[in-house]
Amino acid sequence: MRILGIDPGLATIGYALVDKESNSFKVLEYGVIKTSADKENIERLEIIHRNIQELIKEFKPEEMAVEELFFNKNVKTAIKVGQARGVILLAGSQAGIKVAEYTPLQIKQAVVGYGRADKRQVQQMVKSLLNLVELPKPDDAADALAISICHGHVYSAHSGWEERL
Amino acid sequence: MRILGIDPGLATIGYALVDKESNSFKVLEYGVIKTSADKENIERLEIIHRNIQELIKEFKPEEMAVEELFFNKNVKTAIKVGQARGVILLAGSQAGIKVAEYTPLQIKQAVVGYGRADKRQVQQMVKSLLNLVELPKPDDAADALAISICHGHVYSAHSGWEERL
Repeated sequence: MRILGIDPGLATIGYALVDKESNSFKVLEYGVIKTSADKENIERLEIIHRNIQELIKEFKPEEMAVEELFFNKNVKTAIKVGQARGVILLAGSQAGIKVAEYTPLQIKQAVVGYGRADKRQVQQMVKSLLNLVELPKPDDAADALAISICHGHVYSAHSGWEERL
Repeated sequence: MRILGIDPGLATIGYALVDKESNSFKVLEYGVIKTSADKENIERLEIIHRNIQELIKEFKPEEMAVEELFFNKNVKTAIKVGQARGVILLAGSQAGIKVAEYTPLQIKQAVVGYGRADKRQVQQMVKSLLNLVELPKPDDAADALAISICHGHVYSAHSGWEERL
């Protein structure tokens, strides 16, 4: 099963393409999409949507997993990043891909085994599980790899993973 | 100039199609797009995007005006409605339409003349400016008509309205 993991955002969007085969993972690609703050907001949304479409077209993932957003302040930022997340979800849905959403807590629990793991511990576990030679960089791409692993675990633990969501 | 005015949302999206000719407005259509809370969030985004695309295809507006969102609490709602607003902006941008954004204050000032006008005063002025036989309903469609009028006013006041935004 090929998974596209996404750490959503407006300025930086982490992505990862991972194949899950029985109990092992194989990384195909990971990185970040960046949009400049110099550009109009609407142009940034279009760039994000187009880049996600292109990743889907090139790698043909069967499943997509997108982190949920949490903010405890700054509603204005929440709306802007929400807009970006909306066009990311749309790109998956338009391509007919099943899209799952996970909270940061679910991701840490699935990857490290407990929800209070810090960023470094998550990255160490991602490196280990994916047999990477070094810690994945930048952080947003590492997060996207973690999201992909989370989805792979949840999927294999349940024949119908939707029931868990 | 044909304007598509949008009052964005997730459950109810108001829309209006208005022609501005010299100093008068002509209403072509107004109403609401609704998405059911029974549906998956991602499906609702796809419905909204598709419906906006269809309005653009049918009426061929030259400009689009979308209200800005304000929330003073509930960040979770802000993200969800932000996601919906993102796919609305995307639909306009993808069709090559210039998209303007206005705050509720700008809209009230443009339609009624002062920013503290209440909903009823705005609707009365919309009815009067557009020669409607009764107050426009529902509220979200009335708001979309007000947004269209706001854009028409700002546009005619400035040869290059972008400078004002």
